[in-house]
Amino acid sequence: MRISELSRRSDVAVPTIKFYLREGLLPDGVLTSATQAQYDEAHVARLRLIRALVGPGGLSLAAVRQVIAAIEDPPAATHDLLGAALAAVAGQQPVRDHTQVHALLERWGWHADLEDCTRHDDLAAALAGLDDAGFEPPPGVLDAYAEHVTAIARREIEAVPTDSVATTVRYVVLGTVLLEPVMLALRRLAHQELSARRFRSAAP
Amino acid sequence: MRISELSRRSDVAVPTIKFYLREGLLPDGVLTSATQAQYDEAHVARLRLIRALVGPGGLSLAAVRQVIAAIEDPPAATHDLLGAALAAVAGQQPVRDHTQVHALLERWGWHADLEDCTRHDDLAAALAGLDDAGFEPPPGVLDAYAEHVTAIARREIEAVPTDSVATTVRYVVLGTVLLEPVMLALRRLAHQELSARRFRSAAP
Repeated sequence: MRISELSRRSDVAVPTIKFYLREGLLPDGVLTSATQAQYDEAHVARLRLIRALVGPGGLSLAAVRQVIAAIEDPPAATHDLLGAALAAVAGQQPVRDHTQVHALLERWGWHADLEDCTRHDDLAAALAGLDDAGFEPPPGVLDAYAEHVTAIARREIEAVPTDSVATTVRYVVLGTVLLEPVMLALRRLAHQELSARRFRSAAP
Repeated sequence: MRISELSRRSDVAVPTIKFYLREGLLPDGVLTSATQAQYDEAHVARLRLIRALVGPGGLSLAAVRQVIAAIEDPPAATHDLLGAALAAVAGQQPVRDHTQVHALLERWGWHADLEDCTRHDDLAAALAGLDDAGFEPPPGVLDAYAEHVTAIARREIEAVPTDSVATTVRYVVLGTVLLEPVMLALRRLAHQELSARRFRSAAP
């Protein structure tokens, strides 16, 4: 198909497609003349993936590039998969003080990679944000998060397909990035539902 | 204190502070000469709040403005609080097809505001992202999300302080925005923990 049809099929504007081509996020099409190229279903799928990652996934183009690289060139060892997925989506943050994070992980019995502190920066940054804003979570809320997030993660990890490395990587990387907005949207809707039950019933 | 000390105390650069002043996100200090102003602890607290919202909270300046407005000028009715919080952090997205969202909410017995579709756009967008990327969550994963996110939300809603409207609004708005990065960071760490247990034990 030509670029105009590719644009229509993927719902991505032609100038944006050209930008992704220049940036190497989308493979070149097959040239049919000096100014025209043909694209195929793989291009449609790739554009939809990029759209999902930069839209609901909220990733920067640099992170999209890393996600695509992780999917195309998966690491050899299965237990490195999560590392690749996490590295692809982790921000470039300064290394922070992890004292509070480590105390929490010890309390919950989470022992994986306690020595590899770079992976704890996201949580350290999030907890520092609470502190900066003068917001203290009520007692037990962080423990409840850990308990229920673990239950969710257990379901997800059990469901990871292991028939081929490529399938596993694709699943882990996309699951990490694309289910985050689902979880956030559900939390907001659950708040709304429970808030309506609590506060409306108390209204005069 | 002068702007240089305000910068040191809040860990926000002087040019950034001047930008927030021009944008009205930070109230003016008290002028002590034509070119100097004095700032107080309220300015330090506001700057730390803005830093937390634009950093781990990941909000745009426009959303920060709405969060601050919601905290400073809370809605009169308690059951509107969540609405104000959600409106402050919701993106400006086009209205999507909510058929799938409504089917899920019915299945879970979440009935609040089924008629007010604007609040379902985030979930609809997140589910559309899965679809775009060709990623289908395994059976039961969305239900597990709903179950455990509800348990988390219940703990949070029970903990909302109701001693004054201002306290309630501050709590709900900041809790909505600032606990999201905590939950995401915990999910990634839980994945890492469980993945290590599953895949490392299976390694030769």
